[in-house]
Amino acid sequence: MSSETSSKRSGRRPGPTTTRDAVAEAARRQFAELGYDRATMRGIAGEAGVDAALVVRFHGSKEGLFREVMALPPATAAAMAGLAEGPRETVGRRFAEAVVGLLQDPRSRPIVLGRIRSAASHPDAAALVAEMVTRDVGGLVAALTDDEPRTRAALVGSQVVGLAFARHVVGIEPLASLPVTEVVDHLAPIFQHYLVGPLGTDA
Amino acid sequence: MSSETSSKRSGRRPGPTTTRDAVAEAARRQFAELGYDRATMRGIAGEAGVDAALVVRFHGSKEGLFREVMALPPATAAAMAGLAEGPRETVGRRFAEAVVGLLQDPRSRPIVLGRIRSAASHPDAAALVAEMVTRDVGGLVAALTDDEPRTRAALVGSQVVGLAFARHVVGIEPLASLPVTEVVDHLAPIFQHYLVGPLGTDA
Repeated sequence: MSSETSSKRSGRRPGPTTTRDAVAEAARRQFAELGYDRATMRGIAGEAGVDAALVVRFHGSKEGLFREVMALPPATAAAMAGLAEGPRETVGRRFAEAVVGLLQDPRSRPIVLGRIRSAASHPDAAALVAEMVTRDVGGLVAALTDDEPRTRAALVGSQVVGLAFARHVVGIEPLASLPVTEVVDHLAPIFQHYLVGPLGTDA
Repeated sequence: MSSETSSKRSGRRPGPTTTRDAVAEAARRQFAELGYDRATMRGIAGEAGVDAALVVRFHGSKEGLFREVMALPPATAAAMAGLAEGPRETVGRRFAEAVVGLLQDPRSRPIVLGRIRSAASHPDAAALVAEMVTRDVGGLVAALTDDEPRTRAALVGSQVVGLAFARHVVGIEPLASLPVTEVVDHLAPIFQHYLVGPLGTDA
């Protein structure tokens, strides 16, 4: 298979390279599919092929493991804030592309869905989702406008969470199977309105 | 207390009047706060003050109980479909009022939140949420337009779920504490666009 060939060339295996990576990957998958409450240290260790005691030694509690593996890559937050530098009239579309892309990417999707699923059943995870919206989206909004930036960030966050939930958790059709470009087309005007439009008026 | 006095006058107690009502109320509360997986027949029976075997006899399985108590009142679905009869240019605002009202009402809020929390952790509940969106919102959209009605219903559903999640589950500020009228002001243009606006274009 070509991916194996290229991996050999680069000297890296395509899967997790260390026990720690294996644990992180298993944890992300289980938090995303089961939610915080149903995911267990034992189950995560089992999937990663290590002893549960090792996971506890590495990461402390389940909460510690959750916080560690469910952080978005720093590059994502930076890319989000960078959207403010492009043309203002297309910021909604560029934001929609970024969010839909984040949810398509097999590396970031489990993080977003894991937070949402877990937030539904656990207050710590709920706080993390609120934190993500306030920080990541809030940074972009603050760079765009000083007109009710916190309200705008919360509204944007509500549609991001709703999209992830409807398309990837519940699977509401036809949204669940629409191609990426159409989802972006549908969401672009909404994010444009929330980010820089005239809030609180019938647009 | 005045509520007791008025209840005595009307001859009805303010709380559940039968064991069945008590079980339904306890089940709604536990599904809403704990989600499908963490809610148990034993816990629900305990809260209702009845024997768990009685709950099983009345409702069969936990899934049966869930389906029974998490249905929206028939009047709600009828009111939703009725929105199509008012002026088209205000349908987004009237829909926003209906949805925000549904989430404020202590009788319907646990039903909506219970479905969302449960959908996050259980496929049956996820199917119920998809069903609610397809049927309740779908009926309204079909009465309004024949331009991509299923896509519109799914998009509306995504923002409804996102609002409920952000405002009531995660509690993203300031959305969580905004007065009802402001939330309606913010969502009205979004629902107007999704329901009858030019889909897939930058509005």
